[in-house]
Amino acid sequence: GGQNRSAFPAAQGEHLHQKMSENGALPLRGKVLTVDTMNANVKKVDYAVRGPIVQRAVQIEKELKEGVKKPFEEVIKANIGDAHAMGQRPITFFRQVMALCTYPQLLDDNKFPEDAKNRARRILQSCGGNSIGAYTTSQGIDCVRHDVANYIQRRDGGIPSDPDNIYLTTGASDGIVTILKLLTAGEGRTRTGVMISIPQYPLYSASIAELGAVQINYYLNEEKCWSLDISELQRSLQAAREHCDPRVLCIINPGNPTGEPLRSFPYKTKSNYIYKGCEFHSFKKVLFEMGPEYSSKVELASFHSTSKCYMGECGFRGGYMEVINMDPEVKAQLTKLVSVRLCPPAPGQALMDLVVNSPQPGEPSYQTFIKERTDVLSALAEKAKLTEEILNTVPGISCNPVQGAMYSFPRITLPERAINEAKAKGQAPDMFYCMKLLEETGICLVPGSGFGQREGTYHFRMTILPPTDKLKIMLNKLKEFHQKFTQQYS
Amino acid sequence: GGQNRSAFPAAQGEHLHQKMSENGALPLRGKVLTVDTMNANVKKVDYAVRGPIVQRAVQIEKELKEGVKKPFEEVIKANIGDAHAMGQRPITFFRQVMALCTYPQLLDDNKFPEDAKNRARRILQSCGGNSIGAYTTSQGIDCVRHDVANYIQRRDGGIPSDPDNIYLTTGASDGIVTILKLLTAGEGRTRTGVMISIPQYPLYSASIAELGAVQINYYLNEEKCWSLDISELQRSLQAAREHCDPRVLCIINPGNPTGEPLRSFPYKTKSNYIYKGCEFHSFKKVLFEMGPEYSSKVELASFHSTSKCYMGECGFRGGYMEVINMDPEVKAQLTKLVSVRLCPPAPGQALMDLVVNSPQPGEPSYQTFIKERTDVLSALAEKAKLTEEILNTVPGISCNPVQGAMYSFPRITLPERAINEAKAKGQAPDMFYCMKLLEETGICLVPGSGFGQREGTYHFRMTILPPTDKLKIMLNKLKEFHQKFTQQYS
Repeated sequence: GGQNRSAFPAAQGEHLHQKMSENGALPLRGKVLTVDTMNANVKKVDYAVRGPIVQRAVQIEKELKEGVKKPFEEVIKANIGDAHAMGQRPITFFRQVMALCTYPQLLDDNKFPEDAKNRARRILQSCGGNSIGAYTTSQGIDCVRHDVANYIQRRDGGIPSDPDNIYLTTGASDGIVTILKLLTAGEGRTRTGVMISIPQYPLYSASIAELGAVQINYYLNEEKCWSLDISELQRSLQAAREHCDPRVLCIINPGNPTGEPLRSFPYKTKSNYIYKGCEFHSFKKVLFEMGPEYSSKVELASFHSTSKCYMGECGFRGGYMEVINMDPEVKAQLTKLVSVRLCPPAPGQALMDLVVNSPQPGEPSYQTFIKERTDVLSALAEKAKLTEEILNTVPGISCNPVQGAMYSFPRITLPERAINEAKAKGQAPDMFYCMKLLEETGICLVPGSGFGQREGTYHFRMTILPPTDKLKIMLNKLKEFHQKFTQQYS
Repeated sequence: GGQNRSAFPAAQGEHLHQKMSENGALPLRGKVLTVDTMNANVKKVDYAVRGPIVQRAVQIEKELKEGVKKPFEEVIKANIGDAHAMGQRPITFFRQVMALCTYPQLLDDNKFPEDAKNRARRILQSCGGNSIGAYTTSQGIDCVRHDVANYIQRRDGGIPSDPDNIYLTTGASDGIVTILKLLTAGEGRTRTGVMISIPQYPLYSASIAELGAVQINYYLNEEKCWSLDISELQRSLQAAREHCDPRVLCIINPGNPTGEPLRSFPYKTKSNYIYKGCEFHSFKKVLFEMGPEYSSKVELASFHSTSKCYMGECGFRGGYMEVINMDPEVKAQLTKLVSVRLCPPAPGQALMDLVVNSPQPGEPSYQTFIKERTDVLSALAEKAKLTEEILNTVPGISCNPVQGAMYSFPRITLPERAINEAKAKGQAPDMFYCMKLLEETGICLVPGSGFGQREGTYHFRMTILPPTDKLKIMLNKLKEFHQKFTQQYS
């Protein structure tokens, strides 16, 4: 039978209790749950990529639909890395296998290639009752975890990966929050500190706020293409020790816009990586190159998802994490903790499997898969270049090369008068800028203040995902707007 | 480009810092993350339905596969409400629409009925870039929230439901934890207390422990078919006030094994409900029947998911919650909070839509849908009856009628000697019983102690989901085991 579960504030219980005692109608108390009585940590959470500017963008879209006249015809959302929403097409093979898993009657359909059918059969055999509608184990479907481990092992040139160290997750965010949760302890000066890069992705600051941990900022060097200076990491760590217990170092690899701090850190060498899709320097591999003292001791958790790269399958919420050198007792606690949510979505798990176990040479879907993947990655590389080139022609905008992700974080020079007007309004100056941009052009970007930036500098973050023709229009509109804005406030 | 994000304990940072300063190899500190230094609340979390007994069951399954001889040939898992894993077939219409959403090329295939295609087109039109791989809004796809609101409105005989009050969730668990998180505040005597029924579903105790809230037990009356006595609710509330701030009352409706406390509470009347699938008394409707003072003031959050009832689609992690009378500022905080996880899985959202917007009379899929749904519900009703009947023939087992869910929670009488032996082993007596049952028969049940029970009473929880013939075998094996166990320890 169906269930409908309720959790509600006890004003009710209170009142009913009073009613029972006195047998008369009593006025109810005011709200049980108010901003004054709610979880204080939740109030501190900020999440810029879905913040006020995006809410306004959604409103403007509604107004446009209702026929309200605007100086533009559509809102271009470059606020979040949502590839399919920007017109990127899903990889055919992935969707074929997913359809087969969902509706296995299609396994009899000769329109589907044999390799897609084989993958689907294999996944279904690992599901309870051969249904993707069954709960999976909390750590994730066995064969998927094995495939992930094999993938990591290939990626790292044979360095072993143990399926027992793989946890499938609901997107990468879920895994990151889970690990931070495990690590959060202590009070006051012993409270867990979490080192994050500035600029950061706001998931980190939001989770740290929600958990009541301490956020420790280390600043990336914008002048050196957002690289990490060791002295800055050192400064940040030392400063943090005065008021908390720094226990976690978060790094985004490859850049977002963060580069390759770990490798440059121990070796004091630098190597550049170029825009090449999913290629990157694995931290785990670096640990193994540093020798057994490191590879057998350093605790490392790394995360990946189906949402980014050439896949862009955000809606499926597929992801994994690999934890190495985790204390076995803590790992048991981790497994227990993830079991409370029962399991990550099974379709997301299946999709993650396809990402790590894609068509191989000789299989019927191989050619199409390679072509589709190459097309997406070349388009991204082209758009990355386009973004950098056009933005750098604008006086007052400076944009580092977009090297390894789908985002750019250009710096903008704002006139003093604009900064003052924003401050008078109680707005961050780059929020003021982005809000005006949205109202006048329909372009939705996120102010740099939502990601963090050095005091006195201003940025915006934009994805490079809109289709090339639309991206060009957008960049040129942005150019025009910036010039007008600068004139207006000079 | 691809990203791989890492969060790792700072032993690394520590060491590297030392290395930089001294330019020599230093031994690494011990583990940063140990059971002594981890989040203390997480350690307190227990989750019986995926606890030690289930881990042992998984192990036994592996042993059987490896050819280890056992007194049984397979493990029968009746520990969790995982319908498809127990052989229940998915509803054809649901899976057809999901396959169409996943691989829209199938929209040209004339094997799929028109109503399935129309549903799929409508869902895809609400998705960014017409792809179920795009992020949805954090609150959930617009048209799905509208359909949920309409469904609730129909369910409650026209009492209005506002789509703005609907939040789609990753299964019901996600919504429940989110609401409890919002409500958790205060310290010591002002710490939020959460009233939960005993027996409970362990998600509640686990979430309360993780959030560091205070668990307040109210005991259901086993003698009266697990109904709720008002005096018990009163006792529980008053006792709780001595040490915390009781702010939330959690109720499971219909029974699991909880009955209909809300209705019986204000009205002091009782009405019986029978095994009828999804039919139940809506708390919201009751509030409206009580008049505007209640319907406009009492804060209520209710939850539903695709996992239970005739659907049994657990793996998709679809769910929704409706919040009524929530303070608008708090609601803004809720929306912000859910946005940190970006969105619930889009396939789960789509599936939720189909549940609330199933085939209608006259549509091509209607007949099949009704037949499939009826078959599942009749089978459940039959199995509920079977379970009660067989178990009640066993001296020392007493089983209430299974009325509104897929679980039963029979009471078992254990011999004094068995209780003592368990205690000597440091085990709960019903864990001792269930572990023996598993080792000797392959039947995996969950001890009552994982759900809570009155001191000195012992139970197990079993689902009634195994196929009828297997359920019969299981119940008879259970009977035999109980008799043997009782003899052995008498």
